[in-house]
Amino acid sequence: MIDLYELAGADPALRFSPYCWRIRMALAHKGLEARFIPWRFTDKGSLPGAPHNIRVPVMVDGSRTVADSTDIAFTLEAEYPNSPSLFGGPGGEAHARFIIAWADQALIPALLPLLAADICAILAPKDRAYFRQTREKRLGCTLEEAAGRREVLLPGLHATLAPLRAIAGRQPFLGGDEPSYADYAVFGAFQWARCVSRLALLPPGDPVAAWVDTMLELFDGYAGEARVAG
Amino acid sequence: MIDLYELAGADPALRFSPYCWRIRMALAHKGLEARFIPWRFTDKGSLPGAPHNIRVPVMVDGSRTVADSTDIAFTLEAEYPNSPSLFGGPGGEAHARFIIAWADQALIPALLPLLAADICAILAPKDRAYFRQTREKRLGCTLEEAAGRREVLLPGLHATLAPLRAIAGRQPFLGGDEPSYADYAVFGAFQWARCVSRLALLPPGDPVAAWVDTMLELFDGYAGEARVAG
Repeated sequence: MIDLYELAGADPALRFSPYCWRIRMALAHKGLEARFIPWRFTDKGSLPGAPHNIRVPVMVDGSRTVADSTDIAFTLEAEYPNSPSLFGGPGGEAHARFIIAWADQALIPALLPLLAADICAILAPKDRAYFRQTREKRLGCTLEEAAGRREVLLPGLHATLAPLRAIAGRQPFLGGDEPSYADYAVFGAFQWARCVSRLALLPPGDPVAAWVDTMLELFDGYAGEARVAG
Repeated sequence: MIDLYELAGADPALRFSPYCWRIRMALAHKGLEARFIPWRFTDKGSLPGAPHNIRVPVMVDGSRTVADSTDIAFTLEAEYPNSPSLFGGPGGEAHARFIIAWADQALIPALLPLLAADICAILAPKDRAYFRQTREKRLGCTLEEAAGRREVLLPGLHATLAPLRAIAGRQPFLGGDEPSYADYAVFGAFQWARCVSRLALLPPGDPVAAWVDTMLELFDGYAGEARVAG
């Protein structure tokens, strides 16, 4: 049995980390069962592999402990070669790294200021001061000031999504006719938003919204049935 | 013999289109010889497949005429399966489409305002009014006003490049250990800039600059030896 340590809110059933959702979807893709163990930002010393590992997800699979969502995904692909591929071969693996980097470096930073105040509100009380301090430093303003800039931030998000919109308008998944880890890497950010906030991120009719809906329906509605805040 | 119709400047040896450079590199990758036929923006009626085809690149390979750089790349991959793959398999093909879309929708739009005035200056005189009119409409300002906003636009470009920077810092090419069409799709934009402008786009030490240099050296320095303006 695989153990996956993942971020939880004050409600331990609220699992909202974009990086942990990547791995939840990857495990479902591979048909692998796992135990999902709640962790909080301020539990840093308690992770397998601590003090080296201080962030989730961390996966423990038998004697192997792997941290970092991308490393976990490539480990699953290597260790479970007989279940459906996450990457579709070597070219798919290399190119997926760019899509992961885009999700990390463009999409998540575009979403963070829109979501940060809502995230803080659903955290365990002991995590809130840590989250506020680290994210306000990253954002360069208070969480509430960031949320107040919504009208400026949403058009920026829509512009950032242009490459995803182009693909969503022409093929079912970033992986082609079937979803790949690239889809999960990007979808994790939308599931993060959906789990913590009721903010409408996408305009009606945006092909990105249709792609998100398709992702929510995968694996018998796995992500669509996840606990959300409020 | 393949014929590739491509954009030329007033100097017919100056070939600077980012989309045409994608195909130049793809042809070199496949080891295919071609004739490169100069075309100007205002020659719309003269392309093979006109009046349907009004943009370059257009490839004529025997009885087949293909327009659109992405369609040409996929055609080359399908028609020349025994030469090195441009995509690295089905997963590589699907994921490459996102990287192409990022180059089209994020990178080229971030470069256009920085380059547009320089591009206009190297065009054949008969093309200049067409270029100015269409690009000023797209930019929402004059070419010269856009060039004057360089100090604001360059930090935006550097932010846009974050995903490419992350990959350039960890693996030789977007394609992994070997270049793929994804590399050519992105590199075309840098070669466009290099052919028309002396503007320093990247700060010293940027991993993206090292990746561009590597691309210029491929195929015995093919892109590095191309004619540049000035």
